[in-house]
Amino acid sequence: MRVYLDNAATTAMDERVIEAMLPFMREHYGNPSSVHSHGREVRTAIERSRKKVAELLNATPAEIFFTSGGTEADNTALVCALQTHGIKHAITSPVEHHAVLATLQNCAKKNLAELSLLNVSGKGELDLDQLKELLEKQPNSLVSIMHANNEIGNLNDIERIGALAKEYGAFFHSDTVQTMGHYIHDVKKMDIDSLVGSAHKFHGPKGSGFAFVRKDKKISPFIYGGGQERNMRGGTENVCGIVGIAKALELAYEDMSGHQKHIETLKSRMIDQLKEAIPGVEFNGLSADMDKSLYTVLNVSLPPSEENSGMLLFNLDLNGISASGGSACSSGATVGSHVLRALNATPGRDSVRFSFSRYNTVEEIDYTVGKLKEMYSQVISA
Amino acid sequence: MRVYLDNAATTAMDERVIEAMLPFMREHYGNPSSVHSHGREVRTAIERSRKKVAELLNATPAEIFFTSGGTEADNTALVCALQTHGIKHAITSPVEHHAVLATLQNCAKKNLAELSLLNVSGKGELDLDQLKELLEKQPNSLVSIMHANNEIGNLNDIERIGALAKEYGAFFHSDTVQTMGHYIHDVKKMDIDSLVGSAHKFHGPKGSGFAFVRKDKKISPFIYGGGQERNMRGGTENVCGIVGIAKALELAYEDMSGHQKHIETLKSRMIDQLKEAIPGVEFNGLSADMDKSLYTVLNVSLPPSEENSGMLLFNLDLNGISASGGSACSSGATVGSHVLRALNATPGRDSVRFSFSRYNTVEEIDYTVGKLKEMYSQVISA
Repeated sequence: MRVYLDNAATTAMDERVIEAMLPFMREHYGNPSSVHSHGREVRTAIERSRKKVAELLNATPAEIFFTSGGTEADNTALVCALQTHGIKHAITSPVEHHAVLATLQNCAKKNLAELSLLNVSGKGELDLDQLKELLEKQPNSLVSIMHANNEIGNLNDIERIGALAKEYGAFFHSDTVQTMGHYIHDVKKMDIDSLVGSAHKFHGPKGSGFAFVRKDKKISPFIYGGGQERNMRGGTENVCGIVGIAKALELAYEDMSGHQKHIETLKSRMIDQLKEAIPGVEFNGLSADMDKSLYTVLNVSLPPSEENSGMLLFNLDLNGISASGGSACSSGATVGSHVLRALNATPGRDSVRFSFSRYNTVEEIDYTVGKLKEMYSQVISA
Repeated sequence: MRVYLDNAATTAMDERVIEAMLPFMREHYGNPSSVHSHGREVRTAIERSRKKVAELLNATPAEIFFTSGGTEADNTALVCALQTHGIKHAITSPVEHHAVLATLQNCAKKNLAELSLLNVSGKGELDLDQLKELLEKQPNSLVSIMHANNEIGNLNDIERIGALAKEYGAFFHSDTVQTMGHYIHDVKKMDIDSLVGSAHKFHGPKGSGFAFVRKDKKISPFIYGGGQERNMRGGTENVCGIVGIAKALELAYEDMSGHQKHIETLKSRMIDQLKEAIPGVEFNGLSADMDKSLYTVLNVSLPPSEENSGMLLFNLDLNGISASGGSACSSGATVGSHVLRALNATPGRDSVRFSFSRYNTVEEIDYTVGKLKEMYSQVISA
């Protein structure tokens, strides 16, 4: 049995998404900027995709532009919001994804903006009183707080954060890569200036993302070139990727609550079974709190064990289970998780992030818990 | 008959490229940064692709990094070369692609670097004596000159430009988007610090490109995030796109001289037939000079004609022929070609760029010339 429980890193593509993309690899190969019929048919597909994404988010098509993924979308929103709106102070947290954290750190290094980091509790909760104080001191700030943490699953209170940003007139960006396609985002109801999506997190293609930027907070381009994306992003459009992200988001919205229920059942089952199977098991952040965490993520902290120390992911892999230690984007690195470090995770314990999709089954959860039980048999019998 | 003569804008994908990509849309969906087997099989494909591209260019894998296309690659090389190497002066020409021109103009606007533009003759030839003078005054400059012009096809003397840049210690970047996959680039023999490629210009996928950056001229990242691409570009890799660009480049190199001969036959035939069919026909830039222009591009200037004035592309399209007026990336715009403007093209004449690929046939050329002859029948009989 091979079990894939690393869906926060990336998801398998939906065959219906692939089928939607294939005609744009084969028959419809024109350049969307070309005025002839080869180009026009492709331009139509792009604008239809933009309209679809806009509809799902309750945005206008002019507020959606396509990028090469969530990271480029985050870079664009952050760097260009600072530059366009002359903002000299950015506020984020130490548990943000590197697409936000490294980008803002680099902006600080280049003296584009000063950077403040919010305090984080041992459970990954952000200090929003501190946010209020910072905004009082510097109202014209950029606030960048992710909707849900990709490692520990914590759902941040973006309503309150958005309200605070609005109160002080700050620009509020949210890295919504982990929640896009898994929760409804209605931008008309949200106090948010920009948010982003990445297709491969919801069964779409890698290399395709988008940013929503509210129309009264327009920003300058990040990548300069031709007049594509209404002058917002130079470069021939990744037509297949754009068609793919719109189709994937459409499918995600079609049966979101059904998928959510299915995945919540898997996650609850895993929490219950782990507690029973492995004494001393703990859960990082709020990931075991069904109401306060992303339903797709469970971050498990396992009791110290000589057999598995530093080898947990490797041993899981040997047992046919794919899971991650930290962020997808640094899970190959040996530096460990900056998120768990910020939470002062107990030393000696190994952590693993299991992340689920609609393709996972009850059998896979039972198999995984069974294997973990075997792997920790010495700890359990001790 | 539907004839596609807009291959400088984009090319049809080679079915062999699509076949190489499909397994990475279906079975191999892991995140290349993940350490488990789902991730490792994908990581291997990326590194194999990098090695292949490096081999074809006679570079080392560490000098190749993948991007979302030629425009991002140009932006990266230019902006990050200026920032990393503390260069305060950039030299380019007014007939560069907007991926270079708009990027450097924006750098100038932000006071990142002063910008000098080389003089251009009516045939699109660059003033290289002026380049030498500029480099004498400011040796620590960035020089960005494209290998071949995308609109008029002029092949620039990048050997001499590279030698000048080397002599003065300048950083030399070349936008090689139009020649990659159509000419051999041997970076060991070239005095060049960075060059770029875009898959969709040589029968690969849109949304996939790469930059070569010489190892002793390392630059900082443009997109910040995870540690992907050896810390050179954050964001989950577009695995399909990377596999696709390597396959497309491999196929392009496999029978490059055969394809070149075939396309040169088409281009020569079109030049000869046009001269015979339409009195007063002219060719923009050096595009009719087989030795001094890109073999894939022919830019035709047609005699004034009431029927076709401002309607040339539209009339061609009605006749089943897809061609462009200017750059692919602004051919949808009504502002006209900045390249032809810089050449002071004769007012009243309409211009059209025909661009060829290995998929075009003699019959298509004959058909196109026949249609042009019909379209200009009043001019011809006058």
